[in-house]
Amino acid sequence: MKIGIVGLGLMGGSLALSLRKLSFVSNIYGLDHNVEHQKEAIRLNLVEKLIEFDELCRLDVIILAIPVNGVIKSLQSLDNKISETTTIIDLGSTKEIIVNAVPSSIRKNLVAAHPMTGTEHNGPSAAFEGLYKDQVVVLCDLEDSGTHQQETAVRIFSGIHMRLSYMHAHEHDRHAAFISHMPHVISYSIANSVLAQEDKYNILAMAAGGFRSMSRLAKSSPHMWEDIFKQNKGNLLDAIETFQTELEQFKKEIKNDDWEKVSEKMHRGNELEDIFS
Amino acid sequence: MKIGIVGLGLMGGSLALSLRKLSFVSNIYGLDHNVEHQKEAIRLNLVEKLIEFDELCRLDVIILAIPVNGVIKSLQSLDNKISETTTIIDLGSTKEIIVNAVPSSIRKNLVAAHPMTGTEHNGPSAAFEGLYKDQVVVLCDLEDSGTHQQETAVRIFSGIHMRLSYMHAHEHDRHAAFISHMPHVISYSIANSVLAQEDKYNILAMAAGGFRSMSRLAKSSPHMWEDIFKQNKGNLLDAIETFQTELEQFKKEIKNDDWEKVSEKMHRGNELEDIFS
Repeated sequence: MKIGIVGLGLMGGSLALSLRKLSFVSNIYGLDHNVEHQKEAIRLNLVEKLIEFDELCRLDVIILAIPVNGVIKSLQSLDNKISETTTIIDLGSTKEIIVNAVPSSIRKNLVAAHPMTGTEHNGPSAAFEGLYKDQVVVLCDLEDSGTHQQETAVRIFSGIHMRLSYMHAHEHDRHAAFISHMPHVISYSIANSVLAQEDKYNILAMAAGGFRSMSRLAKSSPHMWEDIFKQNKGNLLDAIETFQTELEQFKKEIKNDDWEKVSEKMHRGNELEDIFS
Repeated sequence: MKIGIVGLGLMGGSLALSLRKLSFVSNIYGLDHNVEHQKEAIRLNLVEKLIEFDELCRLDVIILAIPVNGVIKSLQSLDNKISETTTIIDLGSTKEIIVNAVPSSIRKNLVAAHPMTGTEHNGPSAAFEGLYKDQVVVLCDLEDSGTHQQETAVRIFSGIHMRLSYMHAHEHDRHAAFISHMPHVISYSIANSVLAQEDKYNILAMAAGGFRSMSRLAKSSPHMWEDIFKQNKGNLLDAIETFQTELEQFKKEIKNDDWEKVSEKMHRGNELEDIFS
């Protein structure tokens, strides 16, 4: 199986490192529009060699590990150029916009996937082999992909030890807003609340594990997250508002010394312990 | 040096494990009002033996690793019973209420300390030796402690490899609200926002490192945090409101497609990378 990866950053680069361990993968090629990233990817030996976009069409599997806008443009460029057996897998963070935009003539070629993994770092140098292992990958509207493409995607993601989850693209986007996009907005806002204080250095000198946990996502790439916020705007705003209502209520209970309700809220939050353990 | 630790949970138990490595510490005794915790602490060999409260008065150092209310009660009970050279160190999470409540006759005996460390777990079984190493301890209003007591506290905290920071109790409480107490309220609110969704299990199945970071503090002890929220209520409400203003502004900018400002906010949040690295 010959695979081409478009985008050699954290996601694409790490995937390349995982894929090379699979016996059924013979070649891994890559491309990246960023010249520095191209050099880095080769220096770090993430892929065998760099190829041109048109060369992708001769491969068995094309992986689009780039922002959603790039995924949509790539799908349009690949239209009418690939064979019936080509599998395209995109790793975009929002899915409905992608499954709606894919040209119908290559709809069966596409598997819309979202691996629920990442770090706050980016670029080829952030790539590492263990990024995907034991993490969840959501496959969206899989029934609209061809049988061969479904099998190929399942074979690849199972091969790199991911846990497969199936969902409609619409549902995925709503859930992603709650589980990932809204928490990012909050993390940036926590960081900025502290950074706006006059004595920010004295405050930050007291930072321990708790604050580091809560502000880690505020180190994420503004460029990447601006795109995600744009593409999932409606769901994101809903999730933020749900959170705002929750927080306002919590604050009011503290203000009114309604400690029974405060305690109830905290016990409810503790339920995560059971769910995640 | 003979040391008695009141409260053998995460903080007291971990401190016992660190203190036993110090050559100048000869004995470590403990007490805990919870019978289960007493048994656990002995089974885990956290302290040499359990003692009664009154026996504390004969020791060189008394460490109060209990909630703030307990600290205040203990200080009142120790009044008129300890010698001039006894050092009391309290580890309470809010400090102004403590330095205001300590009986003036033993003010010099007290060192008001707040080690900025912890985990979301509690009780003797959560204790581990490395909890304090390389973490910050804030010593509040240290000039009000006796010279001998200042030296003893510095010797102990330096001995277990903590980084010492000095602050007024009032300033500490305000900073702690921003760096620790407000982030806890937010983490509980994030957890509850998701747990309130009808399809919470499908959403939580998508949780990766980001959501786990942001919701980890929601696993903290409701009992302990209710006390902290009560004791630092004014500062906490201020910090929550600062955060709410920040978040509301961020939301409006997303809503209004003001992507330049959204990007600015995210770049500002990225500053933490430099400060923490």
